[in-house]
Amino acid sequence: MNAPSVSYFGPMEPVRFEGPESRNPLAYRWYDKDRMVAGRRMEDHLRFAVCYWHSFSWPGGDPFGGETFMRPWMHGTDPMALAKAKADVAFDLFRLLDVPFFSFHDADAAPVGETLPEHLKNLAEIVDVLEGKIAGSKTKLLWGTANLFSHRRYMAGAATNPDPDVFAFAAGTVRACLEATKRLGGQNYVLWGGREGYETLLNTDLKREYQQMGRFLSMVVEHKHKIGFDGPLLIEPKPREPSKHQYDFDVATVYGFLEHWGLTKDVKVNIEQNHAILAGHTFEHEVALAYALGIFGSIDINRGDALLGWDTDQFSMDVGELTLVFHELLKHGGFTTGGLNFDAKIRRQSIDPVDLVQAHVGSMDACAKALLIAEKMLAEGTLAKPLAERYAGWDGAEGKAILAGERTLDQVADRAIAENLAPKPRSGKQEYLETLVAMRL
Amino acid sequence: MNAPSVSYFGPMEPVRFEGPESRNPLAYRWYDKDRMVAGRRMEDHLRFAVCYWHSFSWPGGDPFGGETFMRPWMHGTDPMALAKAKADVAFDLFRLLDVPFFSFHDADAAPVGETLPEHLKNLAEIVDVLEGKIAGSKTKLLWGTANLFSHRRYMAGAATNPDPDVFAFAAGTVRACLEATKRLGGQNYVLWGGREGYETLLNTDLKREYQQMGRFLSMVVEHKHKIGFDGPLLIEPKPREPSKHQYDFDVATVYGFLEHWGLTKDVKVNIEQNHAILAGHTFEHEVALAYALGIFGSIDINRGDALLGWDTDQFSMDVGELTLVFHELLKHGGFTTGGLNFDAKIRRQSIDPVDLVQAHVGSMDACAKALLIAEKMLAEGTLAKPLAERYAGWDGAEGKAILAGERTLDQVADRAIAENLAPKPRSGKQEYLETLVAMRL
Amino acid sequence: MNAPSVSYFGPMEPVRFEGPESRNPLAYRWYDKDRMVAGRRMEDHLRFAVCYWHSFSWPGGDPFGGETFMRPWMHGTDPMALAKAKADVAFDLFRLLDVPFFSFHDADAAPVGETLPEHLKNLAEIVDVLEGKIAGSKTKLLWGTANLFSHRRYMAGAATNPDPDVFAFAAGTVRACLEATKRLGGQNYVLWGGREGYETLLNTDLKREYQQMGRFLSMVVEHKHKIGFDGPLLIEPKPREPSKHQYDFDVATVYGFLEHWGLTKDVKVNIEQNHAILAGHTFEHEVALAYALGIFGSIDINRGDALLGWDTDQFSMDVGELTLVFHELLKHGGFTTGGLNFDAKIRRQSIDPVDLVQAHVGSMDACAKALLIAEKMLAEGTLAKPLAERYAGWDGAEGKAILAGERTLDQVADRAIAENLAPKPRSGKQEYLETLVAMRL
Amino acid sequence: MNAPSVSYFGPMEPVRFEGPESRNPLAYRWYDKDRMVAGRRMEDHLRFAVCYWHSFSWPGGDPFGGETFMRPWMHGTDPMALAKAKADVAFDLFRLLDVPFFSFHDADAAPVGETLPEHLKNLAEIVDVLEGKIAGSKTKLLWGTANLFSHRRYMAGAATNPDPDVFAFAAGTVRACLEATKRLGGQNYVLWGGREGYETLLNTDLKREYQQMGRFLSMVVEHKHKIGFDGPLLIEPKPREPSKHQYDFDVATVYGFLEHWGLTKDVKVNIEQNHAILAGHTFEHEVALAYALGIFGSIDINRGDALLGWDTDQFSMDVGELTLVFHELLKHGGFTTGGLNFDAKIRRQSIDPVDLVQAHVGSMDACAKALLIAEKMLAEGTLAKPLAERYAGWDGAEGKAILAGERTLDQVADRAIAENLAPKPRSGKQEYLETLVAMRL
Repeated sequence: MNAPSVSYFGPMEPVRFEGPESRNPLAYRWYDKDRMVAGRRMEDHLRFAVCYWHSFSWPGGDPFGGETFMRPWMHGTDPMALAKAKADVAFDLFRLLDVPFFSFHDADAAPVGETLPEHLKNLAEIVDVLEGKIAGSKTKLLWGTANLFSHRRYMAGAATNPDPDVFAFAAGTVRACLEATKRLGGQNYVLWGGREGYETLLNTDLKREYQQMGRFLSMVVEHKHKIGFDGPLLIEPKPREPSKHQYDFDVATVYGFLEHWGLTKDVKVNIEQNHAILAGHTFEHEVALAYALGIFGSIDINRGDALLGWDTDQFSMDVGELTLVFHELLKHGGFTTGGLNFDAKIRRQSIDPVDLVQAHVGSMDACAKALLIAEKMLAEGTLAKPLAERYAGWDGAEGKAILAGERTLDQVADRAIAENLAPKPRSGKQEYLETLVAMRL
Repeated sequence: MNAPSVSYFGPMEPVRFEGPESRNPLAYRWYDKDRMVAGRRMEDHLRFAVCYWHSFSWPGGDPFGGETFMRPWMHGTDPMALAKAKADVAFDLFRLLDVPFFSFHDADAAPVGETLPEHLKNLAEIVDVLEGKIAGSKTKLLWGTANLFSHRRYMAGAATNPDPDVFAFAAGTVRACLEATKRLGGQNYVLWGGREGYETLLNTDLKREYQQMGRFLSMVVEHKHKIGFDGPLLIEPKPREPSKHQYDFDVATVYGFLEHWGLTKDVKVNIEQNHAILAGHTFEHEVALAYALGIFGSIDINRGDALLGWDTDQFSMDVGELTLVFHELLKHGGFTTGGLNFDAKIRRQSIDPVDLVQAHVGSMDACAKALLIAEKMLAEGTLAKPLAERYAGWDGAEGKAILAGERTLDQVADRAIAENLAPKPRSGKQEYLETLVAMRL
Repeated sequence: MNAPSVSYFGPMEPVRFEGPESRNPLAYRWYDKDRMVAGRRMEDHLRFAVCYWHSFSWPGGDPFGGETFMRPWMHGTDPMALAKAKADVAFDLFRLLDVPFFSFHDADAAPVGETLPEHLKNLAEIVDVLEGKIAGSKTKLLWGTANLFSHRRYMAGAATNPDPDVFAFAAGTVRACLEATKRLGGQNYVLWGGREGYETLLNTDLKREYQQMGRFLSMVVEHKHKIGFDGPLLIEPKPREPSKHQYDFDVATVYGFLEHWGLTKDVKVNIEQNHAILAGHTFEHEVALAYALGIFGSIDINRGDALLGWDTDQFSMDVGELTLVFHELLKHGGFTTGGLNFDAKIRRQSIDPVDLVQAHVGSMDACAKALLIAEKMLAEGTLAKPLAERYAGWDGAEGKAILAGERTLDQVADRAIAENLAPKPRSGKQEYLETLVAMRL
Repeated sequence: MNAPSVSYFGPMEPVRFEGPESRNPLAYRWYDKDRMVAGRRMEDHLRFAVCYWHSFSWPGGDPFGGETFMRPWMHGTDPMALAKAKADVAFDLFRLLDVPFFSFHDADAAPVGETLPEHLKNLAEIVDVLEGKIAGSKTKLLWGTANLFSHRRYMAGAATNPDPDVFAFAAGTVRACLEATKRLGGQNYVLWGGREGYETLLNTDLKREYQQMGRFLSMVVEHKHKIGFDGPLLIEPKPREPSKHQYDFDVATVYGFLEHWGLTKDVKVNIEQNHAILAGHTFEHEVALAYALGIFGSIDINRGDALLGWDTDQFSMDVGELTLVFHELLKHGGFTTGGLNFDAKIRRQSIDPVDLVQAHVGSMDACAKALLIAEKMLAEGTLAKPLAERYAGWDGAEGKAILAGERTLDQVADRAIAENLAPKPRSGKQEYLETLVAMRL
């Protein structure tokens, strides 16, 4: 019985695969969940998760205007009843889309309590509800997380707050959310440092806050081991917004932080396209770097607008960009515990219930198409072969010796002089490689 | 006898301190080298260095137009004679400005050789010249460095080149420049990874290049110890340009890299304002972060244009911004081996010889004024007192215990619940602090 | 009797001029209202206006968090009573700051009605209140305006909405606000096209919307004449946010639009620093261009953060930037009907009542200091003299003849050949001019 | 006989259409020149032009490094002989690509003379050569233009130079280039204001320069009529680079300028993708706006990197973006005199001769594919139908009356009150429309 959701989305059949020629905008043209891709079912590769906040908790406001969506579950007098109605609609969307995962913050799913005990009580009640929902659904929990940024108590940070009581409040919240995630079978636990950053150095002790943040994360790691939570913790890099400067600026910054605190084994990154471009990086750069540094975890799949300076969180339909990302992913064997979480919001003018379905369908399809192209490119060695040729010199004896630390500066320099080296540059062939990719899109 | 420089700058007296009321644009109004500031002579605090490349080697071109400056030492048939004439003019400018330091790349000072042996021979000849110049001058060498980016052999990187022979060529060049720096009494050695980055991931093996760069730097560190060079190596972060992505993106990225390779003791950062803002950071952020991470080294003093997306390298005259930077510096005791290197170029329309003098005078004065304001603010505790109050909670017993690792997540969370914490937010007072600073400018 | 405001700001004396040496952050150091500057009282030059929205109607939220300010007048059950309490606090701040003007939107001052008649009734009631307040105060109305962007009916634009009924609703609102402005003695009427723009061309008929916007503005101009409103209409350029693309992108764009519709005589621009930099322009560029095109009207005084991609609307304390703007203003004789409207908001962490006072004091002082420097520079011809010399050639007979249209391309080209012209470039002296300004700050 | 070019590109057959399944990177998969598209041959729609500067005159340098390409025609002692060799290679590339057009600056094609007479003599000699080449080739001249930005005489502008002699020198050059363009059968004449802008307002009289630029353009228009040149003049908007601020910022700015000087009939715009995004606009915005304002002329086809702040001028292979642009173009009937000029440069690491061919092939194919998709979308009304529905209200009697100027503000406002309008927002359906487009790519 999904009465409320049926009434919300209207009479609608679950979205089905109809093949590339279909012109039905509410069908999948490429997302064919059981199709085998590089040794796994497509569904097991893409591991889509619908997320609670943008899809069910955001009312459509922006800095210059209020609510546009008028969701029924946002208007009422009994917060707990509304939270349950929201869960009904959410699981109905999961069913309509036929997705394997979802994700949530405490504040998305449960009424926010004014005191910590009240907050935890609310959360516990909703966790019971979600547990029942999950049991009756194919959709599982990809990850849980805590909202440590919306309430005014966090206006100056959570772990990095100048007031240790706020740190403690955040600790109480994270513990509860981590434990709830474990209980609900979540495969990862995410920390997004929404307010871990600063507005001005005039009132900020950057070094002290770095210590606070390091200790906080270490405590969460210790607790994860204590309670036997198997999945990784995931940090989500973002350079700015809401803060002028966010401490988890990008993948490289998070890596340095994890190295400093000795946490690279337990903590990975959750990469978002829109955050990548805000930091001046391509999406594929952040993914490739995370793999290179051994901290790749999961993806928040969306698309920003490179001409705007803020997080637009649009549903990505850019097959070209996604192909490069999935090429990187497939090269490394694909996700383990991570997945593609839709940290994406429909535009605030998309006020019809069907718009929410449509957006997911369009983006899932774009991802599926990109995955198939990436698979083919890998199978054919489209990019891998020219790459191997380009670096072949480093696979020779001298190249290996240098990288293995078997040569000193003197030895290398002396050889350069003795052989009177005059290395001849070779073409980078960028347009050729771009054409190779373009002809496969 | 400085005949060539006299003829270049015309009849000109060395620039002198005349005090704040002077309206002579070629006098110092604030830069009073012997004035004591926070326990040191002002000259020993600011440690200005004029640099060779922008001031003597750049002809005034830009991507849409060629040479404008028509420097006499850039036009002739005997490269070595021109290099010597350039050195004459350079030391004449040092004398006119009365600066304590200069800096150079091999390619600025000596004719670039086509082969490595020829290149090293040219360099050696100019090092002899510079050694003589230094002996007869008050101006010493702040640092030396190697240009591993202009020649086409480096178009795909130096240490990160796909061809190990280019790596070797670079090794031969860096060894020579490091040794020349030592011989000339240089206090630091700088590495700017101009081409260490990439244009497209389609043709780039990011992980492999990370290894190459790590090994290269490690070799230089080993060599530094071998030859007994006392100063630190300095890496200069920059996010992009010339490459689309530069590996030494910003201070945080360099820190992660140094941690990975175990080099934080031997290698520090050389921070540039224009590079900071290209990376989306304020200048003071990069300085504060470098201090917090223990890798602050030196400064390339200039100013970019935040409305433009490329490196404009203007002479900084912004006392407001400089004050925050010097406040940070003074708080930590000021420079050790580092200094303020003028990585700044006059505009390409500034074609009169006097423009080069004027630009340095204006910027030195702005730095001096900022230093004096910073000194005063520190003495008065203008910012330090409110900062200490804001974080006072962390100086209490519980705050200290948390940071010392003496609390678990459970303990902190349990206390939050037990005490039913409801932390009350406190004003960040940003406008108040901005007013405090503004009233001192 | 200002009981409510006394209780809000606490016991506080009106802010007074204490001179440059004062270290009282709640005193004016430079703003000395009766001091004569270039022939007018300083107060009559700067014409400061406090504005309702940021200062009294914004609760401190941002896209990632809600209210922080907890203003008493935002919490209650009787909207009209709250609106009146807000007016009390507002006029108390005006008194404390001793400012000559204020500004407001309908939606800031009066409760928003669900229907147009209800909305107009609410507005009328508050206009009565404001009329009384103004009568008992030195503070007058600089301008009024209508909020045509917050309500969901405007989500796709007001004048440019695809639905002509929304256009009509907006027309009804603007008429009422324009008439209210007239009744309250307002000196200008402002139109900010908050939602006049688009999110995607996929659903936008750009040409049609251009027509709608042109007709709307023309109707307002016609009505202004009909009712005998003397002041100019002011359009406020902004390139983006909330829309991806805003039609009133910048001063040049607005100019083209006004030319197209023949409205340059009746409509001028209201320029904001933060909007200028979002469009890629300096503040002084927009002001200089508006003067050059004859459409300068007024200023929204604030400061954005060039490292962030959104409107931060900070209180400006940057004397250097303000000096260039006031130099431009003074050169043209200063404001006529326009003024300096504080379209600036305190940071959301600035939650103490005094922060609101402090921010205005700091920024008013920065403006005053800049005005005094600009006055001096103009009197001395600091910039004007070198400028006149630079363009002296155009004041010669041939230069004048060319500009007067008395020469054809053939005549000019033939002279160039006949005289074998080889024009010698002259230095742009940028660093010299920057030093001249810097030494006066 | 194309001996030099054969030796340059090696043995190579002209590129041919092989159909979408071809994996030959040097074949066209979509560009099938004789295929009929919306009533015209594909070649007549796309009107590709190869351009001289990036493809034959740029040596591969960037701000941090010199020449990489080592083109044979750039190394020699006889400039005129080199210019002729260059023309041979150029026309050989035109033949290999089978393109209908090319374009050039005086300075690309002919040796730059130090004096105007010498310069014009060189140009005349090369025009003779080009005339012969054109006669023996299918490739015609799309447009000619003058380089008024590279030489140091133009460092402070051409028409907007403070020195009227530079204005005169520019006039002499433009006259010659315009006449050469006419003689060579060019269909348009382009003016790109490379140095028409400023670095700092400190030394710039913006209003005066606006007059100079207006008079210059007017003189060229008058001359065009005098000599009977049929094609339009085209201004190319760009917001910055090389200048900090360029006067022809974007399409809207140019429109205002043309309106001011009464030149909208004779002058159109030449739009470039990279310039569009530097100005903060999408490519399709600039095209749509130019059509809406009646000043659309031609396109410089390339692609910038939205994460970089400078003009990268890459060959566009982004079918998604191109589709929206061609959709706009086809909607208006396609080009008249304009075309797709490849203002695109291969990366400086693309040093093999074949890279130049490859880049054009890849981008021509992307354009062809996009054109075919756009044709289909137009035929099906994919976007046109929903758009018409969205604005249907404006096609009603009242909507038309408003736009026709038959309603006053009072009438519209009174109706809104009388009918108690409460317009109901309708979904913008952005994700739906994006899906419609994505499924056709």
